Formats: sequence, C-alpha cells, structure tokens
Amino acid sequence: MQRQDFPSSPLGLHRVAEPAGALPQAAWRLDSSPELWPDEARVRVDRLNLDAASFRQLTEAAAEGPDGGSTGLAAALRGAVLGIVAERGKMQNPVTGSGGMLTGVVEEVGPDSPLGLAPGDRIATLVSLSLTPLAITDGLARWDGRSEQVPCDGHAILFGRSIAAVLPDDLPVPLALAVLDVCGAPALTSRVVRQAAAGGTAPVVAILGAAGKSGSLSAVAARKAGAGRVIGLVPTQAEAGLLSSAGLADQVVIADARDPAAVAASVRAAGGPAQVTVVCVDVPGCEGGAVLATADGGTVIFFSMATSFSAAALGAEGVAADITMLIGNGYVPGHAALALDLVRAEPGVRRIFESRTAEGDGHAG
Amino acid sequence: MQRQDFPSSPLGLHRVAEPAGALPQAAWRLDSSPELWPDEARVRVDRLNLDAASFRQLTEAAAEGPDGGSTGLAAALRGAVLGIVAERGKMQNPVTGSGGMLTGVVEEVGPDSPLGLAPGDRIATLVSLSLTPLAITDGLARWDGRSEQVPCDGHAILFGRSIAAVLPDDLPVPLALAVLDVCGAPALTSRVVRQAAAGGTAPVVAILGAAGKSGSLSAVAARKAGAGRVIGLVPTQAEAGLLSSAGLADQVVIADARDPAAVAASVRAAGGPAQVTVVCVDVPGCEGGAVLATADGGTVIFFSMATSFSAAALGAEGVAADITMLIGNGYVPGHAALALDLVRAEPGVRRIFESRTAEGDGHAG
Repeated sequence: MQRQDFPSSPLGLHRVAEPAGALPQAAWRLDSSPELWPDEARVRVDRLNLDAASFRQLTEAAAEGPDGGSTGLAAALRGAVLGIVAERGKMQNPVTGSGGMLTGVVEEVGPDSPLGLAPGDRIATLVSLSLTPLAITDGLARWDGRSEQVPCDGHAILFGRSIAAVLPDDLPVPLALAVLDVCGAPALTSRVVRQAAAGGTAPVVAILGAAGKSGSLSAVAARKAGAGRVIGLVPTQAEAGLLSSAGLADQVVIADARDPAAVAASVRAAGGPAQVTVVCVDVPGCEGGAVLATADGGTVIFFSMATSFSAAALGAEGVAADITMLIGNGYVPGHAALALDLVRAEPGVRRIFESRTAEGDGHAG
Repeated sequence: MQRQDFPSSPLGLHRVAEPAGALPQAAWRLDSSPELWPDEARVRVDRLNLDAASFRQLTEAAAEGPDGGSTGLAAALRGAVLGIVAERGKMQNPVTGSGGMLTGVVEEVGPDSPLGLAPGDRIATLVSLSLTPLAITDGLARWDGRSEQVPCDGHAILFGRSIAAVLPDDLPVPLALAVLDVCGAPALTSRVVRQAAAGGTAPVVAILGAAGKSGSLSAVAARKAGAGRVIGLVPTQAEAGLLSSAGLADQVVIADARDPAAVAASVRAAGGPAQVTVVCVDVPGCEGGAVLATADGGTVIFFSMATSFSAAALGAEGVAADITMLIGNGYVPGHAALALDLVRAEPGVRRIFESRTAEGDGHAG
C-alpha cells in the first residue's frame, strides 16, 4: 500500500506530526505508520544500538527509580525506551536529544526510493534514530538492559535522504553495528588531522576517551592521517592497560576528563599541548579540559553528545583560547567504509570493540 | 589587603567554591569576596550587559510568573538577577548557561596582575560574566528591566587571564559596551570568510538574524573579508526595513529562522546556498535551517547561545550534509578593535546598534 495523500520530502518533513514545519530530528513526534510514500523504504528492525550518552542517562535514571535492582533495572529500561518510542514515534532520548542507530532487513522499497536497496538486504542505518520513524512490536522482551545493543522487533522508515549501509559479510553484526554507530568520528578526525599535517609539521593529537569505541577509531585514524604523536587519555588504570595493549597511542595518560587542570597537565607532560584534540568521552563537563589541552591555533572536535554548546563557547572565551571548536558532524562522505577498513586492518581496535561489546559497555571513555 | 593563604591561578581556579576542580565558567559557585590575590584586579561595576539569550529567557520566565505586569516584571527581573548573583557569586543564567559582560572603573590592581590596568581606568570585560566573580550592592534599584543593560553598583574580580578593554573615548559607553559584547562574532566571521575566499571564489554568506547586533556586525565583517554576496535573513518586515536602509546586505530575505524549509528556500532564492552561514538568532531551533541553507563543503558558525549541540550534530548527519560546524568562540585576537572599527566606519551598523540600545532590545534577530 502506498501513501500519496500529500507529497513526501526526502528529508522526511511529511512524517513530522508535531510541531509542524520542524525537521524530523528536531520534531517532538513522528508518524511511524508502516505504509510507505513512493520514495521511502521500510526496514524490519532486529536490533537498536542506543548511543552511549543516551544509554548512560537512561541507565542512571532507571537506577535511581523505585525498581533500581538488577531485574527491576531491566524492566525500568525497557519501559523507558518503549515509552519514548510510543510517545514520539522515534527513539530520541528527551534528555540527551540523541538516539543511536539500528540494523534490520529491508522489507519493502517504494518505487521512487533513491537508496539503491532491495528487499532482503541486511542493513544498518547511518542516520540517527532521533529522526527515524520507528515502531516496536515485541515489548523488547529479549533485552536484558545490560547493553546498549537492544534486540528488538518492529519496523522503521527510511526517507529518500536517509543513509544506510548494507552490512559487510566478513564482520559479525554486533561488531559492524558498533563500528558504524561511531563512524563519523574517525572520518572527521582524519580530515582535520590531514589538514593540520598539510601545514608541514605532523600534529600532536590528543584523544580524550581513547580506549572507547569512537576514541580508539579516532586514534588510529589520526595516526594514519599523519599525526606526529597520538596521546590517548583514559580515566582508569584498566583502560590504560586496554589501550596500551592495543597499541593505538604513542603515549597513554590517566586523568579524569572532567578535571580541566589535570587534563591540561597530563597532555602537556605527554608532549602536548595538542594541535588537534578529539573529545570522545560521553559524560558532561569535558569542555574545559579539551580547551586547555589544545595549543593556540589548534582545533577541538567534540563528538560526545554530552557536550554543552555554551560551556564550550564561553569556556574558550573565558581563558582567551584562540582555538577552532568543531561540532562533530556524524556525516562525512565515505565514513562507513573508512571505519570498517580501520577495524579490519587494526587488530587492536577490533579487540577494543569486541571487549566493549561483550561486556555490554558502550561508553566512549 | 592581599590574600595569599593559597596560590592563585590565572584561570581563576582559586575562586571556585563549588564544585572543586571546575573551571570558573563551569563552576556552580564562585568566591566573589573583594580581597585580591596578587595577580588579580578589582573593578567597581557600573553596568552589566546581560547576553541576549539570557535576557530573553529571564524576561519570559518573569512574564510567566505571578507578577507579570509591567511594574511587577521589573521587580521579578531584579529579583531573578539578584538571586542568581547571590547564590552563585557570578551572573550566569542557570537555564542558558550564558552571562554577558560588564563595565566599570578599576579600583585596585594586585602587584602581579598582567593586565596592564591602573586604578581609574574605565573598562569593559571581554570575558563572560559566567566566569567573573561578582557582588551587587545596590539591589539593582536603577534598572527598569526593559533593557539588557543593567545599571548596577558592586564589584567584580579579574583574574590574570581575564581579558578587559579600556573603553574608547570617541564612542558612548552603552554603544561601546553593546559592540564589545558581541565582538567575537565579526572577528570569527571575518576569519572564516577570508579562508573561504582564499579558495579563489568569493563566497556567498548568509547571516541569520542580520538586523541584530552580532548579525549586523558579522554582515559588514563578511563583506570586508571578501564575501561575494551577503544574504541577510530577518524575521519581520520591520527588521527588513532596518537592514535594507543600513545597506549591510546585498539581499534581504524574510523568514522564520526556526523553519528549516523556509530558511533553505529563501536563502536559495537569494543566490544561495551559502558557503558560509552565520547564526546570530538568539532563539532555540535554528540549527536545521542553518544546515539546509549551507552548501556541501561549506561552514556554519553558530554564535547564538541558544544553539543545541546535539540538534546541530544530529541535524547535519540526518540530512547527510557534509558541512563544517563551528562553535562560535567568543575570543579571537584583535576582536575588540576590529568590532569598534567596524562601528566607526559603518554608519549603518551604528544606526542599528543605537536603535536597538535605545529601544531596550538586545535580541540578535
């Protein structure tokens, strides 16, 4: 059945239920009904991958609730996700504003869909869940609440401009999903480091949260793009061990990323300040340390969804830091292929991803 | 009297009362006591300039309160500002995270202060109120609540690295203060447009909120930096008239900056998409329009403190926009002199500032 009662938009404006005129990402509520417009595709969802900041917030909120025990926690988390999706027609955490992504099998493709997908294709979305119409039909019964990867039955809608990647045959699905979820980070890091290196001097690159998923990929991307020295900052001795054994950083330092003076001092001691600083820590309050760890004329890339715009802007102004601060855009052309290739080529990155997926810990640092 | 009970930091870490280890901007509460550490200076404050996003939020909150009438509104606003400063030791709006700036006369300078100030200098701070220790002693009795410029008696503390500008003799104080408050915007716009123009083609620049203070300064800075076409977007016919008569934009378009499709269409119709888009509108929800108005490979500079980090990051990803998004850093070397010179050279900018200061309207768009 095809809907043509009014025209569709490749951006999905036709699915915005409230408020009118908003983009799907900014909208409060989307129409997630399964009938397609001619340029849409529908996916049978089998797994959600909540983004790290959202999963952390939901877990903390559930733990503070009345059912904070371990069985109760899973039920509280299921209830929270189901409630959001039922109310909003998409999985967008109202506190963090972020979503995540999903995998599934293409079920139906409208005649005008430009995505090049066919029914039966096993895909991952590369646009955020925060703008993807979604309905869940299994009550998330198979999710134990311990991982941000959520087994799920339901359907999702892809617009004309919703990017999706066919999953590779040579990598396990949970691994590929975890990699694709953060693939914007290594791609943008690579671009910025390459530009910095084009000046003639190989830049010092500091990665905050370097033993996490986006952090480890960004570290190896920085090295391949011409970094002179990669400094990996992690919060604990255990993470330092993980990062050191993976061999992704020239120097590993331990500091609390929320402690600006400690971050600045440890990056300096490891050969900084950095020409490029990449923030992959999914907790609030890391703006100041990133600013202070960065050399005048340098660049900070904020990938964490826990970043505060005003804290970054005013923090840099407040210490008279002449630095460029980038909002980590999750889309860079070729980002999926680049990230998957990094995981194929670097056993250290793969080990980090497998250990984090296995332990159900999606935190970037 | 000099305090030396423990060492001071040029960043002001020694004044952070809560939580320990935070930078002053990120801290909840600062110690605003008047006794100086050796590298500090104390200013007798005569005027606060609340930033536009904060003033708007406070005004809206006060209007919704029980005393929303016109006399009651002033009292409610005074109470709100006094309450924040008493509780936090600084004027940082807890909702927006932003502050503003102040003017005053230097009262005492510690022997180790590196700022080059002397008692009696009439200055404006160029670091945010959100990190400046402040105490108010006159109950804000002279403030009618109708303008973001707040007559005020009290004292403020400058750290070793707190930038301040001696006020120029040739411009009225309210004008100079309003210009210095937004001087980071034209400076960064100038830098980005110059870089874009260095590619060989004069870039199209779109300014959202171009009839406001930061917007008008950014428009004229863009033109001087080599923009091929400056498109000024404003919300109303009245603002369009103001901007057109000031002669700051090559094309003036009217659209609601919160309506992404309308912004994109009107910028396109005026000669866009833009290679550089500058967001100077101090209301939430302008991220999508800015993204859609910008050409692939282009840059968006977000100056509004109402910008949502996640809305920008996910909004660009959601429409597969390969654009660079900058957090508007309020500090660029030479920013104060550049902005004051633009106002001296461009009668159109000065008229916009004077009309907005006179009418008590500090909204950037």
